[in-house]
Amino acid sequence: MLKKKPAGSGQPIVKQIQFADQKQEFNKRPTKIGRRSLSRSISQSSTDSYSSAASYTDSSDDETSPRDKQQKNTKGNGDFCIKNIKQADFGRREIEIAEQEMPALMALRKRAQGEKPLAGAKVVGCTHITAQTAVLMETLAALGAQCRWAACNIYSTQNEVAAALAEGGFSVFAWKGESEDDFWWCIDRCVNLEGWQPNMILDDGGDLTHWIYKKYPNMFKKIKGIVEESVTGVHRLYQLSKAGKLCVPAMNVNDSVTKQKFDNLYCCRESILDGLKRTTDVMFGGKQVIVCGYGEVGKGCCAALKAMGSIVYVTEIDPICALQACMDGFRLVKLNEVIRQVDIVITCTGNKNVVVREYLDRMKNGCIVCNMGHSNTEIDVASLRTPELTWERVRSQVDHVIWPDGKRIVLLAEGRLLNLSCSTVPTFVLSITATTQALALIELYNAPEGRYKQDVYLLPKKMDEYVASLHLPTFDAHLTELSDEQAKYLGLNKNGPFKPNYYRY
Amino acid sequence: MLKKKPAGSGQPIVKQIQFADQKQEFNKRPTKIGRRSLSRSISQSSTDSYSSAASYTDSSDDETSPRDKQQKNTKGNGDFCIKNIKQADFGRREIEIAEQEMPALMALRKRAQGEKPLAGAKVVGCTHITAQTAVLMETLAALGAQCRWAACNIYSTQNEVAAALAEGGFSVFAWKGESEDDFWWCIDRCVNLEGWQPNMILDDGGDLTHWIYKKYPNMFKKIKGIVEESVTGVHRLYQLSKAGKLCVPAMNVNDSVTKQKFDNLYCCRESILDGLKRTTDVMFGGKQVIVCGYGEVGKGCCAALKAMGSIVYVTEIDPICALQACMDGFRLVKLNEVIRQVDIVITCTGNKNVVVREYLDRMKNGCIVCNMGHSNTEIDVASLRTPELTWERVRSQVDHVIWPDGKRIVLLAEGRLLNLSCSTVPTFVLSITATTQALALIELYNAPEGRYKQDVYLLPKKMDEYVASLHLPTFDAHLTELSDEQAKYLGLNKNGPFKPNYYRY
Amino acid sequence: MLKKKPAGSGQPIVKQIQFADQKQEFNKRPTKIGRRSLSRSISQSSTDSYSSAASYTDSSDDETSPRDKQQKNTKGNGDFCIKNIKQADFGRREIEIAEQEMPALMALRKRAQGEKPLAGAKVVGCTHITAQTAVLMETLAALGAQCRWAACNIYSTQNEVAAALAEGGFSVFAWKGESEDDFWWCIDRCVNLEGWQPNMILDDGGDLTHWIYKKYPNMFKKIKGIVEESVTGVHRLYQLSKAGKLCVPAMNVNDSVTKQKFDNLYCCRESILDGLKRTTDVMFGGKQVIVCGYGEVGKGCCAALKAMGSIVYVTEIDPICALQACMDGFRLVKLNEVIRQVDIVITCTGNKNVVVREYLDRMKNGCIVCNMGHSNTEIDVASLRTPELTWERVRSQVDHVIWPDGKRIVLLAEGRLLNLSCSTVPTFVLSITATTQALALIELYNAPEGRYKQDVYLLPKKMDEYVASLHLPTFDAHLTELSDEQAKYLGLNKNGPFKPNYYRY
Amino acid sequence: MLKKKPAGSGQPIVKQIQFADQKQEFNKRPTKIGRRSLSRSISQSSTDSYSSAASYTDSSDDETSPRDKQQKNTKGNGDFCIKNIKQADFGRREIEIAEQEMPALMALRKRAQGEKPLAGAKVVGCTHITAQTAVLMETLAALGAQCRWAACNIYSTQNEVAAALAEGGFSVFAWKGESEDDFWWCIDRCVNLEGWQPNMILDDGGDLTHWIYKKYPNMFKKIKGIVEESVTGVHRLYQLSKAGKLCVPAMNVNDSVTKQKFDNLYCCRESILDGLKRTTDVMFGGKQVIVCGYGEVGKGCCAALKAMGSIVYVTEIDPICALQACMDGFRLVKLNEVIRQVDIVITCTGNKNVVVREYLDRMKNGCIVCNMGHSNTEIDVASLRTPELTWERVRSQVDHVIWPDGKRIVLLAEGRLLNLSCSTVPTFVLSITATTQALALIELYNAPEGRYKQDVYLLPKKMDEYVASLHLPTFDAHLTELSDEQAKYLGLNKNGPFKPNYYRY
Repeated sequence: MLKKKPAGSGQPIVKQIQFADQKQEFNKRPTKIGRRSLSRSISQSSTDSYSSAASYTDSSDDETSPRDKQQKNTKGNGDFCIKNIKQADFGRREIEIAEQEMPALMALRKRAQGEKPLAGAKVVGCTHITAQTAVLMETLAALGAQCRWAACNIYSTQNEVAAALAEGGFSVFAWKGESEDDFWWCIDRCVNLEGWQPNMILDDGGDLTHWIYKKYPNMFKKIKGIVEESVTGVHRLYQLSKAGKLCVPAMNVNDSVTKQKFDNLYCCRESILDGLKRTTDVMFGGKQVIVCGYGEVGKGCCAALKAMGSIVYVTEIDPICALQACMDGFRLVKLNEVIRQVDIVITCTGNKNVVVREYLDRMKNGCIVCNMGHSNTEIDVASLRTPELTWERVRSQVDHVIWPDGKRIVLLAEGRLLNLSCSTVPTFVLSITATTQALALIELYNAPEGRYKQDVYLLPKKMDEYVASLHLPTFDAHLTELSDEQAKYLGLNKNGPFKPNYYRY
Repeated sequence: MLKKKPAGSGQPIVKQIQFADQKQEFNKRPTKIGRRSLSRSISQSSTDSYSSAASYTDSSDDETSPRDKQQKNTKGNGDFCIKNIKQADFGRREIEIAEQEMPALMALRKRAQGEKPLAGAKVVGCTHITAQTAVLMETLAALGAQCRWAACNIYSTQNEVAAALAEGGFSVFAWKGESEDDFWWCIDRCVNLEGWQPNMILDDGGDLTHWIYKKYPNMFKKIKGIVEESVTGVHRLYQLSKAGKLCVPAMNVNDSVTKQKFDNLYCCRESILDGLKRTTDVMFGGKQVIVCGYGEVGKGCCAALKAMGSIVYVTEIDPICALQACMDGFRLVKLNEVIRQVDIVITCTGNKNVVVREYLDRMKNGCIVCNMGHSNTEIDVASLRTPELTWERVRSQVDHVIWPDGKRIVLLAEGRLLNLSCSTVPTFVLSITATTQALALIELYNAPEGRYKQDVYLLPKKMDEYVASLHLPTFDAHLTELSDEQAKYLGLNKNGPFKPNYYRY
Repeated sequence: MLKKKPAGSGQPIVKQIQFADQKQEFNKRPTKIGRRSLSRSISQSSTDSYSSAASYTDSSDDETSPRDKQQKNTKGNGDFCIKNIKQADFGRREIEIAEQEMPALMALRKRAQGEKPLAGAKVVGCTHITAQTAVLMETLAALGAQCRWAACNIYSTQNEVAAALAEGGFSVFAWKGESEDDFWWCIDRCVNLEGWQPNMILDDGGDLTHWIYKKYPNMFKKIKGIVEESVTGVHRLYQLSKAGKLCVPAMNVNDSVTKQKFDNLYCCRESILDGLKRTTDVMFGGKQVIVCGYGEVGKGCCAALKAMGSIVYVTEIDPICALQACMDGFRLVKLNEVIRQVDIVITCTGNKNVVVREYLDRMKNGCIVCNMGHSNTEIDVASLRTPELTWERVRSQVDHVIWPDGKRIVLLAEGRLLNLSCSTVPTFVLSITATTQALALIELYNAPEGRYKQDVYLLPKKMDEYVASLHLPTFDAHLTELSDEQAKYLGLNKNGPFKPNYYRY
Repeated sequence: MLKKKPAGSGQPIVKQIQFADQKQEFNKRPTKIGRRSLSRSISQSSTDSYSSAASYTDSSDDETSPRDKQQKNTKGNGDFCIKNIKQADFGRREIEIAEQEMPALMALRKRAQGEKPLAGAKVVGCTHITAQTAVLMETLAALGAQCRWAACNIYSTQNEVAAALAEGGFSVFAWKGESEDDFWWCIDRCVNLEGWQPNMILDDGGDLTHWIYKKYPNMFKKIKGIVEESVTGVHRLYQLSKAGKLCVPAMNVNDSVTKQKFDNLYCCRESILDGLKRTTDVMFGGKQVIVCGYGEVGKGCCAALKAMGSIVYVTEIDPICALQACMDGFRLVKLNEVIRQVDIVITCTGNKNVVVREYLDRMKNGCIVCNMGHSNTEIDVASLRTPELTWERVRSQVDHVIWPDGKRIVLLAEGRLLNLSCSTVPTFVLSITATTQALALIELYNAPEGRYKQDVYLLPKKMDEYVASLHLPTFDAHLTELSDEQAKYLGLNKNGPFKPNYYRY
């Protein structure tokens, strides 16, 4: 089943079943190249293998479905559905640790002691349920919001964290290992409550939004806006908008500068090394590597591997990115020019069938093949499932595919995203995302009427700058302030925004 | 006089005299931070000190003004005004050498053997007159255009190149060391010719455009468009457009991706090292350096110095760029935190009074101070011209400013742009600019009516990509082509454009 | 127990018990700073947590001591003692995979098809028993040697590999989890066999050598030499030599150039990142790190972290290394200058008490502390075991030490070697070590009488160069050969050695 | 004449004339690969083109030979022979500027206020006469020595500095542009003075030592030692020692760690970029470069070019250095594999005929060829002086060699050392050399009898460490001191030496 449903890498198959009429829309890919959703970041396998202690308690859990249990927290509240409320203490500790690395949200809480910018907000959310999300939810509460929450992924919920949230009074409906039916049942429980109606949506992947569209379209009358954070969800919103069906303002937080740089360039610069090491223990020095695609992800991978002493080749379709690769010191080649000689092949294109069987056939013995791009289409893994090739699982996430002549290809994560399957996402990156989400909620909730129409918006640059500024103290970084004279000279407000919208950073 | 008129670094003082009514507009700086005009790139000093053999013939020239000479080329044509037609052979060799490093223009010429996309175009140009410009002009001619040309800077003309152009039949009006009156006289001679009227303008700094606006506004009836390449000129065009006074379409080639990255990031990464070495022979290893501003220019400077073993601090006003500096491994500080300890201070802000007397007073003995940013306002050099400080010129472009206690500050280029004054601009960078200019002319000249209105446009992304693709063969770089299936999957045309307009590269 | 006996990081406690008279000698540390023994590289924890599939079969093993079992391989041979002969197939596959990454040994085997340079050699060995060691042993056999083998570490034996070796006819005495008594019993079984006497010793740590000195000193009459590969073992040999007690030639392979560079600089450049990521998932970008010591290990750590965007400070006691740190772009400080501000503290000194309680008290909340140097003395971990501090084990190898005010220090591997405890050693590095060992055996065994006296020798440079040359094909690297004329000009033999002994590389 | 006598790159031709019997010895090259003499660092061309203001006064000098002039300084002293005593003030300023960057010598002076370790020393010196040498000489004087000095190179004397020294009372015999006869006359005037006899020799190249051997062998009775700083001179001393002809102790300061690292690795890392830029203005980004030789010089060149975005290939003959190149991320190739595709060829081998005509024939149009290695033998320049090839001097130090088909090769410095001909040596590097020389003089002069015999010695490691420590304050670098307990643990003296002699750094 794992093989058929690549958790953490795209659209759960379930949607194709339940909403066949919408299938086409979901299957279209976003036209924005080089993006990826870290929001779907904690796949089953990575949780299993490498994550923190949280997961080891799972094995002691019983097999009863949470939906069949009677659950109450210590205050007698039972408006939630999770795996095991007894794990709350453990989850609380995880949350406390996460708090230490999410200083921006903690700073928002402090400022909220006076004003409550989300007072009256009723937020319904559908995201991964992790310690970092818990810090976000408790921040929203501190800012005045009521929250009800479901998971956007059937595998990614940290049960202990869900328990801590439930114990803290949040109405959470999520556990690790939900069935497809459970998944939609949980979402429905968040939304469908007598006497309570959400006025804000925080979504990650668009499933929650979709459900409300399908089942409770009238709710949108009271909803002030949607905040969406994934590539997929944003794509859906743009489709709705284009079709004239978007009935509230939506904020695309996926494309904010800060989030993009951290999700792609900065995070991948580290996770390519981490993912390769954890799975293969390969030594980078002297290795010949080809990186397909020189967008932000490719740039991060190339910089890291070059720094570790690898010899890196790049392929590109876009001449501008290609010229950047040249100026950054990488030979720009076509894949077939070097396929016989490279030790590692990494795809970062967002495209499909970049590494096809023909190339796999020509790789040398021991070549490592992995995907850092979007979804799991870049390597044509299906072409390797033929009778003459033998698959051998040598570790979690690592398969040897063996040719009749004995040649072995080392395929990682079956072609799914290496950085999500085989490495972890630093809390700091998640902090940037969560802060962006919180600010987007505040902006949409408090915007004067007319500022936002029924369209998809990018986060105002000033707020993007604000997110960045909240994270500078982590680095003990000291920002310079413009003098009045300088601000005048530059024609800028002293508090920003400091750059035109088209600035490339 | 040199001190009063900072050659190569901004607006010639002359304009303040002749068009006092426009003064305010000219003095305003562009609101785009972090840009700089390489178009004004070859200042007197750099030509004097380091450039190729071209300059050494100058000393043998007589003192008669070119305007007072009767000049004819070997074919009897006399419609030009230059220093000395006898230098044509020497200039031709310079042009030939430049041709070898401007493959994109040569490729355009080849393609023009069949079609002549500029047939009928009458281009009046005002740019630096260098070997690289000559390659551009001869390319335009090969594409079908007639050209008349003046210099945009009174110092930057390479007389030998001007001679070769005149010998080749171009109507060139330019020489090194024009007076302010000469400057406008030359421009006027380009434009004001009986029986000939331009239909395209190629400008660098806006002086030519300005002159036509002032003197021959009716000419705009036949003009199909303006191509402008400098920050200053583009700023003027946006002002005109805002004021509703722009009467033809204008193409802002300054802000094309390729040009920006090469003018700023890639070029400054090399020229900061070159400029500092040529002027001070300083050893970079172990030096503590502060770079003010982390835009493209600052990023280039920081990367280069870090790679050479310097310890680099960064100041920023924009929290997003500040966060980038952190992630790239630089301590983000305020200038006053490290001013006492640094060995080198580099400004890259586009701002004014970034390094003021207070900081200069606190620098340690031997500290080097220079400017890589926009214009000459970043270091408050005026504040150093006080009686208690002694200035000592120790080399061309290098002053020791000496405090009463003996402390010496090493001030480079009197605070003007280091990279323009003390290093050179590689032909490859100029090739990218010139190709962009040529394509912009072709686009504007051939655009169907209605595509461009009386506004300022960026070069279409597809043409930006085309400029890049023409430069890839220099690196023996091989672009990958999309298959039909992949193009469909990505929703892209196989020939581009490959990215949305807001893509950040 | 784990806490009391730091596996893989130094001298097993057992020796202090059994040979109290030798204790002092063992406790002395080597005078060579900056070395470390990768030979003791596979600690229990790293095997447990991250290693290949090999380990998961352990859990199914029964609890009977191997010493109490009757064991025979399929050919009826029973001269071995291992955990479970049935694991042989699994171990064989592990060996085959290792063979692919140990091309140098495989090349030696090929050359041995004609000549058998170790014909007649009876090698007794005491090293880690891993797949890589198996490739070495089978190579020695192919070269003509008979081998008997024990483990040099009670935890590091891969039982499956031991089974495969036993099945293949090797007399192996080793299993994972030996008791101290088992440890010496196994060594004795290797040596003490009627009708068989070793003539070569391959040791890693000196325990085998020590045992023979103690129990069977007469054996040295027939022994042609000792090859020793660890810092500790080499140190013991130098002590013996100094005391005039060394009675056969010994080869110090620890200090060969190639081994040193790979064990320290190249390997640590990668393992510092790997070790930190696997244990803490920390993001390197923007982090402030102090690296104590700028020898080869420190240089590797600094280079890697700088490349990942960390801001790195260095401490040093040696002014030459200190000056190198400066020229490489690192601020040279004393630990107390930055201890309050750094995010990560890494020791690479080979010294003791580099990070003492006083510094630990002043670190900021969340500071990560780890050791990449020699043994486990660099961080004064004992000082943290006081009542007012709380220890919390948050993951394998990760402890939070919590101060009364809530401050947490993240201590990795309890101060033992991070790279051995929390990352893996690439096979390629082990290949270089194993090849060096094999060549040293060949050299000592075949040396004409008188070439080596009763002293400790470094591997001849020519053999060091040979080891390197055998590993170049891995990188498809093509060496240039000197022409006769050039060799004459340089005064060199065309086949090397190419450098004087004091060359620094 | 310039072409026949490569100034600054080796043995002046004169020696072949005057001491034909010694010729063979001089022509042999040192067997130590990868060294180079910065001592012969300021060739005519570099002084002409790029050096500080000092040189521009030359043109006003008259043509009378200094030997024919009557010269006296303002105190009436006439025991010197220089170009023009009137330039003393100018020279003094140059010396003062140099003092600021030679903190180690200034520190030695301060310590000498109490003790005079060179009291009674009569030092005769033969080195380049530059501002940096002046700082050394005045330091020696401050330490108690009497000095007489000649130039070791006929072109490198800074006349103004010589004037300042003469004015200050030093007996200097040197001017820029000496004839061969002048050269030996000057040396003789230093040595041959009634009533004065040297007891220490400071030599750079061995010419002074040679002269005394030839003319005044009896002088050696009173001479306590020779300090020699060049590869060539050291080579001669080893030859003398081997032949049993060395009659006093000699100190080889060329091979001290600090000097080597700065002369080669650190200095070349910067000068390769500087030399290429000043001569060709080439853009490094994206260029394909081959570096022949991966010793310290090659390592420096490769690191710098990689950092600037070049794609670097390496050739090597030594498998150990080859393996280092691989691990540092460079493709190891034979020259012929990439000769057709590279843009720049750099030799760093110390070998001869590395780039021969066959390769030059196959290079692509515009390829830049230069030498960073030892002497001028690496590129077979002679093979380019054939009738079918045209040479065109395009700038100082830059020739285009043109093939019949129009292909141009850009040859720098006619194959002589690029870093000496086309870039400058930072004062900091010279400071390290000068300090090493001063300490070597002190050591030899004060050594108790018997410590040094008639042999060639390396500087004691402790003094090497002392040189380094004197330069740390320049970087505000703070050394950590060992505690008593730590020193004991390490078996080290708290004040060093800290490393064994074979330590590789």
